Amino acid sequence: MIQPIFTRGKRIYIIDQTLLPTEFKEREITSIKEMWEAIKKLRIRGAPAIGIAAAFGLYLGIKDVNENQSIEHFKKKLKKCAEYLKTSRPTAVNLFWAINRIVNKFSEKNIVDIKKAKEFIFSEAVNIQKEDIETCKKIGENGSYLIKDGDIILTHCNAGALATGAYGTALSVLYRSAEKGIKFKVYADETRPLLQGARLTTWELMQANIDVTLITDNMAAHTIKEKGITKIIIGADRIVSNGDAANKIGSYNLGIIAKYHAIPLYIAAPLSTFDFSIKSGSEIPIEERDPEEVRKIANTYIAPKDVKVYNPAFDVIPADLITAFITEIGIFKPSEISELKAFYLQNQK
Amino acid sequence: MIQPIFTRGKRIYIIDQTLLPTEFKEREITSIKEMWEAIKKLRIRGAPAIGIAAAFGLYLGIKDVNENQSIEHFKKKLKKCAEYLKTSRPTAVNLFWAINRIVNKFSEKNIVDIKKAKEFIFSEAVNIQKEDIETCKKIGENGSYLIKDGDIILTHCNAGALATGAYGTALSVLYRSAEKGIKFKVYADETRPLLQGARLTTWELMQANIDVTLITDNMAAHTIKEKGITKIIIGADRIVSNGDAANKIGSYNLGIIAKYHAIPLYIAAPLSTFDFSIKSGSEIPIEERDPEEVRKIANTYIAPKDVKVYNPAFDVIPADLITAFITEIGIFKPSEISELKAFYLQNQK
Repeated sequence: MIQPIFTRGKRIYIIDQTLLPTEFKEREITSIKEMWEAIKKLRIRGAPAIGIAAAFGLYLGIKDVNENQSIEHFKKKLKKCAEYLKTSRPTAVNLFWAINRIVNKFSEKNIVDIKKAKEFIFSEAVNIQKEDIETCKKIGENGSYLIKDGDIILTHCNAGALATGAYGTALSVLYRSAEKGIKFKVYADETRPLLQGARLTTWELMQANIDVTLITDNMAAHTIKEKGITKIIIGADRIVSNGDAANKIGSYNLGIIAKYHAIPLYIAAPLSTFDFSIKSGSEIPIEERDPEEVRKIANTYIAPKDVKVYNPAFDVIPADLITAFITEIGIFKPSEISELKAFYLQNQK
Repeated sequence: MIQPIFTRGKRIYIIDQTLLPTEFKEREITSIKEMWEAIKKLRIRGAPAIGIAAAFGLYLGIKDVNENQSIEHFKKKLKKCAEYLKTSRPTAVNLFWAINRIVNKFSEKNIVDIKKAKEFIFSEAVNIQKEDIETCKKIGENGSYLIKDGDIILTHCNAGALATGAYGTALSVLYRSAEKGIKFKVYADETRPLLQGARLTTWELMQANIDVTLITDNMAAHTIKEKGITKIIIGADRIVSNGDAANKIGSYNLGIIAKYHAIPLYIAAPLSTFDFSIKSGSEIPIEERDPEEVRKIANTYIAPKDVKVYNPAFDVIPADLITAFITEIGIFKPSEISELKAFYLQNQK
C-alpha cells in the first residue's frame, strides 16, 4: 500500500513526489521547516495528503519543546507553528482544516502536561491520516460495484494514493476492483501542464500491476472511440450545492466528450469535498497559475519565452455531465445531492 | 512573409524548424543529402512544405551533373535522386506527389540539353512553390469573409506558413483577416505530443503581431466558456467523400467541444487534401507513432520509462461536427461536398 506520508515509531517519512517516476525516494522529515518546504515544493501534493503532512508538521514543530516549560509556553509555540505551516500553500483548504482541527481539539482538552500534550498532537495527526485512509477505502469499496469485467476506464490527473493518506479516491475504486479480481484496463491522461497523470498515476497503477496505458489529454475522444472506453472516473477539488464539480483542468473537456459518446463519468470524492455554501459552479473561484508551467516542461522552453499564456488550474464540470458521485457513504446522482446535503447537515450538528 | 523554404538566385534556404521558437535560423541547403536530412529530421514539416522541399531537393541532386554527359545519364541520375528523396519520409503523400510531378513533366518534355534540363527542374520546383502559395492566399482570402471584429479564434497544431509554401491554411485566414484590419484574438492549443502549436503557431502569429495566447490542449472547453471563443479554425490532413476529416490528434475533441458550445468549427484546406477515393473517415488509416514522443518531452522522461503508450498521430472529425471547409475555390458545407467532388472530377479530365 503506497502511503505518501508514513511513520516508523514517531519518525515521519514522505515519498518525494517531485522525483517520481524516475526515482522512488523515501525521505525522513525531521523538522517543521523541512515539512513546510516539502509542502511548498510539492514533494507532498493532493488535498488530503497536504492536510496529513501539515498535521505531522505541527507535531515536528512542538516535539522538542522543553518539558519543564509552562503549558502556556507550549500553547504559544503550537500557535506559532500553526501559523507558519499555513504559509506553505495558502490556498490549500485541507491544510487549514487539519491544523485548525488539531489546535481546536487541543484547546478543548485542557492538557497541562507537556509530554501528554506532545502525545496528543501526534495521535491527532495519526487520527487524521487513519480517518482519511478509512474514507478512501470506503470510496473504493462503494465504487467497485460499478466496475465490471472488461471495463476500460479513463482517468485524469492523480486522484490516487499519492494524493491522500492511501488508496486515493478515483484510483481507490480501481485498487479495490483489482483486489476483487475484476478484469479491467485503464487509460491515463498525462494531464498537462503539471503531468500528474504521466508522472504519478501511471506509476501508482504500475506498482499495483494494474494494466495502464498513457495518452496525451487531446487523445481522449479518439481513445474512447477506438479503444472502447466504457467509463471515466476522476476526483474532484470541490463539489457544490447544484452538483457542479471543480476538478483539474481538462475535466470539463472529459465531461463533454463522455456525454457525446454516451459513457458515464463518475466523480469519486469524500464528503469533505462538498461545499454546500456555494450554489453553483460559476461561483467557484478558479486559480490561475504561473505561465511558466505552460511555457516550460522539465525546465526547457517549449514556446516563445514571451508568449501570452492562460493557465487555469481547474475547470468546472456542470452537474448534467456527471453520472454520479462515489462517496464514502454511497453513490449519489447529482439529482440526489439534497440527500447528501441532509446527511452533511445532520453530521454537522 | 514567412517562407519555410526560399531561394536567393539558385541558392536554396530553409528555416530550421527544429530550433524554433528558441532560435530563428536560416540554413542554406547545398546538396540533396542535406535536403533529405532536413526532411527526415523535421527541419521542414507540414505536407505542402515537404513537397516543395523535395522538389528543390531534386534540383540539388542534378545541378552538378556534367553538362557534357548524355541526357540518358541525366535521366538516370534524376530517377536515382527521386528514389532517394522518397525514402526521407515514406508516408508523406505530398513528397511523392511533388517528385512524381516533376519527373513526369520532365519526361513529357523531351529535353535533350542538360543545361536546359537543370533549368526546367529548378523552374518546376519554383512552380510547385508558387502554386502552393497562391492556393494558400486564396484560402486566406475566402476564409477572411468569415472573420468579424471581436472574434476569438481557437486553432490547433500548425496549419501555418511553416507548413506550406507561405501563409498556411488555417493561419492564412488569420493573416488575411489581420491584413484587412479585422480585430480578433487567437488562442493556440499547444498540441501534444509534438507541441507544434506551442513551438510554431504562437511564434508565427507573434511575428505577424497577431494577439495570440497559448493554452494546453485540455483547456479548450474551459477557454471556450470563460474567454468566449467564437470560432475554431484548423487544417486537415485528409478529407474524404462523406465529409469526415482526419487532422492532428485532438481535432476530434475540438469538434465535440465546439458542437456542445454551439460554435462553428471550420477546416481550412486545399482541394489537394480531399481524397474522394475513400468513402468515410473510418477507412482512413491512422498512423501510430513512437511511444517515446509521449513518454519524453525535450529529451526528459515525464513518465515511467516502461509505461505502455497509445500514440495515434491523427484522429477523425465526423462530418456532422464540421461547419464548413474553407478551400481555394470557396467555402463548402459538408453537405455540399458533392459539388467539390464534381469540380475535382472536372479538373482531373
